[in-house]
Amino acid sequence: MDLRIVKTRIALKNALCDLVNDNDFEKITVKDICKRASVNRITFYDHYKDKYDLLNDIFIELDNNAIENGKILDKENNPLNDSHKSLINYLLSYVNGLITRSSLIKSMAKHMSGYIYFAFTNFLNNRFRQLLNFYNQESNLIYSPEQTTAFICNGLIGFVIAGINNSSTEDLSEEFYKAQKLFHSLINNHIFINKK
Amino acid sequence: MDLRIVKTRIALKNALCDLVNDNDFEKITVKDICKRASVNRITFYDHYKDKYDLLNDIFIELDNNAIENGKILDKENNPLNDSHKSLINYLLSYVNGLITRSSLIKSMAKHMSGYIYFAFTNFLNNRFRQLLNFYNQESNLIYSPEQTTAFICNGLIGFVIAGINNSSTEDLSEEFYKAQKLFHSLINNHIFINKK
Repeated sequence: MDLRIVKTRIALKNALCDLVNDNDFEKITVKDICKRASVNRITFYDHYKDKYDLLNDIFIELDNNAIENGKILDKENNPLNDSHKSLINYLLSYVNGLITRSSLIKSMAKHMSGYIYFAFTNFLNNRFRQLLNFYNQESNLIYSPEQTTAFICNGLIGFVIAGINNSSTEDLSEEFYKAQKLFHSLINNHIFINKK
Repeated sequence: MDLRIVKTRIALKNALCDLVNDNDFEKITVKDICKRASVNRITFYDHYKDKYDLLNDIFIELDNNAIENGKILDKENNPLNDSHKSLINYLLSYVNGLITRSSLIKSMAKHMSGYIYFAFTNFLNNRFRQLLNFYNQESNLIYSPEQTTAFICNGLIGFVIAGINNSSTEDLSEEFYKAQKLFHSLINNHIFINKK
């Protein structure tokens, strides 16, 4: 992709993440986003259909980073390319990557009934289902893929949000570390994937 | 409580649960509820402030039933009144009792971003926190009470809803049975309450 395109998109994504720190997503306009990003309004529409499309691109960015970082973890701890382990590496990378977009998570914590919360939960559920399929884990599942992903994604998102709402610091790394630990204990105790 | 009062409230609660089968909760009016229940509109306001108050009374009813049935289970399987076991009995009774108000759960499954979903998740989270406190389980928790309840309540509600959305039958008992099984495996594997 052309470097200028990449730069514009990064500026727009950062602007939206900045704005949700102090504003409801529902009330943020494309005009606000362009002003914050110093990007022309016409240019915005060259890249995105609307603010929902821009938000979705941030979810895709988090996802791409998780895939990249999952592969790096795979090289370190999964030389035999065990697909179960790859799935875990992806999810751990995902949780870790959320720190880079922490204002989104903080916004969800503030507006639990808001659009970002639902869009994100939905995105993560769909992605996780695809991965279960990709890594051929569906046949090992104790419950259906839909129920497994709903339990893990909704549970972990609720867990992180509750942690943020009750934390005195702005630093979210502790919350993500705890979510990783919890996820590990779900896996290691075979709560939703059968023992081999 | 006066039997006439009880009867009116039951009629209104049943009417609301009937109506959510085919209508968005957001669009249901007090007038609709009164018509379905054959209750005078003025009488409605003798009992409830608005439809949100009526919905909350259904949550309280589910909760009271869970406490009653939890005690019955306690008599059967918990002669020493182990508080950890009492907590489990309450939650199993709760999940089981939801079958009596299955239209509410089906409505949540249809409108994941709706008021019922949030109000219910919130109610269950608060109630579960109180119980953890009441049964002195807080000191045994691996994570904070807020995070523990958020993980379990959000996770299990997501799990049941995903089951309903992917089930071909109208019978929810299978979904609730699976939720109980999952809850049991979380407890037995000490995912969130430490081993004694």
